[in-house]
Amino acid sequence: MDKRYISIFIPASITAETKDLRIKTYKVGLIGRSAAIFKASQIVVYNDISDDNEVKFISDILSYMNTPQYLRKKVFPISKELRNVGILPPLRTPHHPTEEAEVGDYRQGYTIKRTKKGTMVDIGADRLALCREKLSINKVFSFKIVKLSKKDIIIEPEEPDFYWGYEVLTTYKDLYESINEVKPDLVIGTSRYAEPITSIFDEVKSKIKDARHLAILFGGPYSGLHELIQGRKNIIDLEVNTVPSQGTKTIRTEEAVLITLSAFNLLLDAE
Amino acid sequence: MDKRYISIFIPASITAETKDLRIKTYKVGLIGRSAAIFKASQIVVYNDISDDNEVKFISDILSYMNTPQYLRKKVFPISKELRNVGILPPLRTPHHPTEEAEVGDYRQGYTIKRTKKGTMVDIGADRLALCREKLSINKVFSFKIVKLSKKDIIIEPEEPDFYWGYEVLTTYKDLYESINEVKPDLVIGTSRYAEPITSIFDEVKSKIKDARHLAILFGGPYSGLHELIQGRKNIIDLEVNTVPSQGTKTIRTEEAVLITLSAFNLLLDAE
Repeated sequence: MDKRYISIFIPASITAETKDLRIKTYKVGLIGRSAAIFKASQIVVYNDISDDNEVKFISDILSYMNTPQYLRKKVFPISKELRNVGILPPLRTPHHPTEEAEVGDYRQGYTIKRTKKGTMVDIGADRLALCREKLSINKVFSFKIVKLSKKDIIIEPEEPDFYWGYEVLTTYKDLYESINEVKPDLVIGTSRYAEPITSIFDEVKSKIKDARHLAILFGGPYSGLHELIQGRKNIIDLEVNTVPSQGTKTIRTEEAVLITLSAFNLLLDAE
Repeated sequence: MDKRYISIFIPASITAETKDLRIKTYKVGLIGRSAAIFKASQIVVYNDISDDNEVKFISDILSYMNTPQYLRKKVFPISKELRNVGILPPLRTPHHPTEEAEVGDYRQGYTIKRTKKGTMVDIGADRLALCREKLSINKVFSFKIVKLSKKDIIIEPEEPDFYWGYEVLTTYKDLYESINEVKPDLVIGTSRYAEPITSIFDEVKSKIKDARHLAILFGGPYSGLHELIQGRKNIIDLEVNTVPSQGTKTIRTEEAVLITLSAFNLLLDAE
């Protein structure tokens, strides 16, 4: 799924069913892991419960997970809501390296200060790296390591061409307005009342083929997709059932994300 | 996936990475939900960490989830290990009815006592039901309601022909010995080093076609399937990669279960 820009739309209500902060944190962790496993480019957190705090909580946890461990303390000030992040599983993606840096490696770095030579950047090494460009301070960018000696680490701003984590978009808006803000080429909804993906495999494949930016929508525990966009112009291009003959009456959002991304991954891989 | 008997093999180590009883409980809950969503017939908990307590804990949580709410207090004595079951999501399968009983419905019932007429059974109604057969006491059986009046509820032992929950098999043995005990027709392993399921779709389909009892094996956080059965006769008939081009270095067991059952559900549905 790495050739296309894929956005998944997640409702703020996914964590509303429990008051337990650990379980909330773990559930959001599952969403972050699902995105990384299937190389989703963006997670859009939309507001279906008029609760900006919940939207922010979910977005913060997702951003925290996507930040390499060596930058987390710099990027995220200690907060009450993030106190259970210790239970989050690591993403284990290439942008969270566990080995020592080598020339040619990519690293995310946090810009610390400007000097005459350029910008000093924390890339998680035992010393700061130098980027010869003048960059904004206190921000995260992606870099390539071009020189590595006992004295210096020289880096250049560059994004790799392999999967490099997801972006988190916090719209604080409802699903309909969030889709309009993101403007994907193809919007796919999942529903147990739609045709099974297996019976319309070719139709789904041909529609996806021309889409550069694919959006996959997920409803919440309180309202399905149709209720969330009712009364407005139909914005869903294609609806599919990714769990033919499901055994349970309902499927939870965090379950649906793994199941549905698994189905689309197979579909895109079979192209 | 309801036409075949499908067993999934889960390692006791899935909960070993965390000491937090709530997170442990929630993780096992995901396995139970996955089995019910995809109508797996049996969950086999095998012992890969020589820890019988952990095997028992996982099995108890899974059995608890599979027991209708009206029977849980009867079947499961209060225990320290089960103190967080409140966070478990309900299965919402047909054998966990939320509506009042009607004639023709199936119910799981707990046998309370023998009388001259037969056996009195708790099926979660406001009064005990009568089964005219003599059954063992303090056990759970499946029944069909054949008569329902203000005075009497008459039931007969009968299993429905739709999905009726999963069985839990606790072997306390390692993976190899557990497979030998279960004796499935076809044993499928999942591995990121195997061929993608999409590229051997027809081969997998034709092999599955003749299998009445399908076993799907899952490894744990400490050892993959090959390490778990090494040094012994190869017992795996088919290995597939259900996550072509995965974005993360590893996939956790609870994630792999949902992803893999999703893939096999599509494959079996496309038959």
